Amino acid sequence: MEAREYIDQNAPGFFTAVAEWLAIPSISADPDRGGDVRRSAEFLAGQLRAAGFPVAEVWETGTDADRGLPAVYAEWPAADPAAPVALVYGHHDVQPVDPLEEWDSPPFEPVQRDGLLFGRGASDDKGQVFFHLLGVRANLAVSGKQAPPVTLKVLVEGEEESGSLHFADLLRAQRERLRCDVIVVTDTGMWAADVPSMCVGMRGVVDAQVDVRGPDFDLHSGSFGGGVPNPLHAMAALLAGLHDADGRVALPGFYDKVRPLSDAERQLIGRLPFDQKAWLAEAGNSGAAAGEAGYSSLERVWTRPTAEVNGMWGGHTGPGGKTIIPAQAHAKLSFRLVADQEPAEVIEGLRQYVRRAVPPGIEATVVSDGQGVRPSFSPVDNPAVAAGRRALQRAFGQEVLFTREGGSGPEADLAEILAAPLVFIGVGLDADRVHAPNERVSTTLLLKGAEAAAYLWDELAATAAELTAGR
Amino acid sequence: MEAREYIDQNAPGFFTAVAEWLAIPSISADPDRGGDVRRSAEFLAGQLRAAGFPVAEVWETGTDADRGLPAVYAEWPAADPAAPVALVYGHHDVQPVDPLEEWDSPPFEPVQRDGLLFGRGASDDKGQVFFHLLGVRANLAVSGKQAPPVTLKVLVEGEEESGSLHFADLLRAQRERLRCDVIVVTDTGMWAADVPSMCVGMRGVVDAQVDVRGPDFDLHSGSFGGGVPNPLHAMAALLAGLHDADGRVALPGFYDKVRPLSDAERQLIGRLPFDQKAWLAEAGNSGAAAGEAGYSSLERVWTRPTAEVNGMWGGHTGPGGKTIIPAQAHAKLSFRLVADQEPAEVIEGLRQYVRRAVPPGIEATVVSDGQGVRPSFSPVDNPAVAAGRRALQRAFGQEVLFTREGGSGPEADLAEILAAPLVFIGVGLDADRVHAPNERVSTTLLLKGAEAAAYLWDELAATAAELTAGR
Repeated sequence: MEAREYIDQNAPGFFTAVAEWLAIPSISADPDRGGDVRRSAEFLAGQLRAAGFPVAEVWETGTDADRGLPAVYAEWPAADPAAPVALVYGHHDVQPVDPLEEWDSPPFEPVQRDGLLFGRGASDDKGQVFFHLLGVRANLAVSGKQAPPVTLKVLVEGEEESGSLHFADLLRAQRERLRCDVIVVTDTGMWAADVPSMCVGMRGVVDAQVDVRGPDFDLHSGSFGGGVPNPLHAMAALLAGLHDADGRVALPGFYDKVRPLSDAERQLIGRLPFDQKAWLAEAGNSGAAAGEAGYSSLERVWTRPTAEVNGMWGGHTGPGGKTIIPAQAHAKLSFRLVADQEPAEVIEGLRQYVRRAVPPGIEATVVSDGQGVRPSFSPVDNPAVAAGRRALQRAFGQEVLFTREGGSGPEADLAEILAAPLVFIGVGLDADRVHAPNERVSTTLLLKGAEAAAYLWDELAATAAELTAGR
Repeated sequence: MEAREYIDQNAPGFFTAVAEWLAIPSISADPDRGGDVRRSAEFLAGQLRAAGFPVAEVWETGTDADRGLPAVYAEWPAADPAAPVALVYGHHDVQPVDPLEEWDSPPFEPVQRDGLLFGRGASDDKGQVFFHLLGVRANLAVSGKQAPPVTLKVLVEGEEESGSLHFADLLRAQRERLRCDVIVVTDTGMWAADVPSMCVGMRGVVDAQVDVRGPDFDLHSGSFGGGVPNPLHAMAALLAGLHDADGRVALPGFYDKVRPLSDAERQLIGRLPFDQKAWLAEAGNSGAAAGEAGYSSLERVWTRPTAEVNGMWGGHTGPGGKTIIPAQAHAKLSFRLVADQEPAEVIEGLRQYVRRAVPPGIEATVVSDGQGVRPSFSPVDNPAVAAGRRALQRAFGQEVLFTREGGSGPEADLAEILAAPLVFIGVGLDADRVHAPNERVSTTLLLKGAEAAAYLWDELAATAAELTAGR
C-alpha cells in the first residue's frame, strides 16, 4: 500500500478526531481556560496512545510557586536502538478568539467548507500537529513494521500562544528524555499552496537599553542652551550612527561572524514569487522598502542582522512646550541576529560603540544581560534539511523552495538546549488567518503534511550516518 | 546737595519702607495669597504717591472670565512735554518660600545682617523696584526742581513669578498710556559686586513639535525589522542632523539674519571674570562645555542662536523589551533666537529641513504657530544704553561692562509691544539666592542702584534728541 492511499482511506477518521480536539477551547492566555488546556493535553495523549505510541504522558510545567500549563510527551522507539532520534515539536494551545462577532461559524465548532477546515487551532497548531499521527500510521502501513524507522519523540506544549513561559525550563529539566538527533518543528507554513517550501532558519535577538546622562537636573535652555551638551542630542547622534549610509549596522565587529547568504539559498529565495507591494501593505502600509544595500526585502528580513530602535524617550513629553535641556535620555534597542552571531558579542560591540559615540560631558551606560536568543539556521545542504525537503517533494510532487523566519519562538530554545538541528515541516499558509477570526486550514494541505510526515521518517533513517555522526 | 549724600541721609527711611513692603507675602503662584498681592500693590501705589508721583494707580489685569493679579502704574510728567518718556518696569510679586525650614529667619520678617537685607523679594524684585523711589527723590534734591527731567512712568506687575500670564494683554490694552521712548528694566543683576555691568540683550525663542510617522501600527521587528523604515531611526537622524560638526544649526537660512557679535561687545564680554568650572557646576554639574565652534561659553549662551531638543519619545518606553518597529516618533524642539532672527522664518527653515531630512516611506509634520518671542537687543553704542551705562558708572565710580541674558521674560513683550529700547538697570547678584531660601540683597548695592537711578534721568534727558528721534 502506498502512503497516499492509506491517508486517503483514513482521512475521514482523521478529520473527525481533529474536529473533536478543535472543539476544546484550549486558550492558554485565558486563566479561566486552564481546565480546557488540560483536557486538550489529555485528549492528545490518548490519541497518541491510540496511534500506537507506547508512551504518551501529560507533563506538568512550571513550579509549585509558578504553575504552568501542561505539555504532552510521547515516545515510540525504533526497532534499532542506533536509529536516529527525531523529536516533533508543536503546541496544543490556541489564541483567544476576539472579536467573536467576526467569526462566520463559532470558533470551537469546527466545520469543513470548500476544502477548508474552519476553527480556532485548525492551522495553528492542532491541525498540523495531528497530521503526524496519521503520518506515522501511513509510514507503518507502507513498511508493514511495528515501529517507525527512527525513534520518534513528540513534545507538544500548552503555552506557545502565551509566550512559552515555562518551556525552556521544561527542556532543561527533561533534557535527557528529550535527547534527539533532529528536531522536526511543525508550527510554520509554506510560501503558498502551489509553492511548497520549508523554513531553514530563524533570526535570533538580543536587546539592550542605553541610558544617557548629562546635567544632574533639567536645565533652563535660556540660561544654558547652546553652552552645554544636551543628552537628547547625544542620544540622537548615537542612534543615527547605528547605521551607515548603506544601511549596515555600524557596531564594531557586528558582521565578523555573520555567515554569508549562500548563492544556492539566495537563488532559491529569488525564485519565490514575492509581491513587494502586498508585503508593504501587510507592513502597516509602510511607504517604502528600506534596509541594507545589496539585499532584497526577503533577504533583509530573513538572512541579515539588524539594529532596531524599539523605543526612546527623554525630556518633556507632555502637552505644550518646556524649554529645558533634559538631564537624561533613554533608548531601547534590539538586534536581530543571524548565524553565527553571538548575542553577548553583539552587546559588547554596542558597549564599545556607545563608549566612542558619546561626546565629552555625557555619560552613557548600556544595560543588557547579553543573553537573548541565538539565531538558528540549517544550511540548505544540511542532511536533515535535505531529508525533510525530499519528504515534502515526494508529497507535493514538485520542487520545494526555502524560506526563513525573521524572528524566533521557542524553536531557538529547542535547538540550543537540545543541541540538534531544526527541520521545519509545516503546511500552514499566510491565508490561514491564524490569530484572527475565521482561522482555517486547507484539508488538502493537512493531508499533504501527513504524507510528507510519512516519508520523513524513512528519509531521515536513510541519512542515519550523517544525523548521528555528532552523538 | 549731591545724590549720594541725599541717599545716605534717607537710607534709614528707605529700608524701613522696604521692610514694610517685604513683610507682605505677595506670592503670586499661591491662590490663597491673592489678597496679599493686592495689599502689596496698594502699598506700592501709596509709596509712589508719597514719593511725589502725581498719578499712582492699581491696575486690574485679565478679564472677568480670567482674573489676573493687580499691577501698579504711576506717572510723573516732566516739566517739558517734549522731554523723553522713560518707563520703569519691575514686579511686586514674589516666589513661594518652600522649603521653609531652610530659612535662617522667616521669609516675611525682613532683617538686616552683615550688610545684607534678608527676606523674600529683597532682591527679586521689591528691593530693586523700591530704589527708584529713593532715586527720583535724590534727583530732585540735586536739581532742586519739582519734576524729573524726563517723564517717568512706572509699571510694576504682580504676576511675573507665575508666568506674566496677563501682562502682554495689559500692555496691548494700555499701549497709549504706556507710550515711552525707553524702557528701564529693573529686575536683573550685575556680574559681581565689584564688576558692575548691564544687560544689553535677551535671546528670543520659538518652539515646534516634529511628528514622524511610518507604518500604520507597530510592526513585529522579527517579521519586518531591517526591511522597512523605522520612524525612530528617521527621527534620530533628523535630530542628529540639526547641528553640523561645528555645532552650528543646520537649518536653511538659520544664520541669514543673525547680527554678528560686535568686536566691541565681544571684547567687553571677554573682560568679565568668568569661572568656567563654577559655571559648569551651576549647570547641573555638566561634564563639559559644548556648543558652536569659535565662541566662548558666555558668547554661546548670550549672543548665539540655538536648536535644542527639549523632549523626544516614541515606541516602547515601559519596563522590559518589546521588539517593535514603532508607528510614530515625536520630538519637541525650541530655538533660542538672537537679533535679528524672526521666529516665523526659523520655523519655515525647520519645515524645509524636515522635508529634506525624512527618508522615503516616512512622513513628518512640523507643528508650530511660528510666533514665539522675538529676541531683544540694544547695541552697546545705543544712546539709551550709553546713558544707562554712564549713570551706573557715576554711581559705582568704575567702568561698567556688558552682559546679556540667554532667555526672555516679559521684557521681550515690553520691547515689542511698546516698541522702545530696553535699558537694564539692576543691582542683583547671583549670590542673592533669588527663588531660594534666605533670599538677600546687598544694602550697599541697593543704595548704589538708587544713586544710578538718580543719575539716569539726567543722562537720558541729555540724550533727548537721539531718544525721541524715532517718535
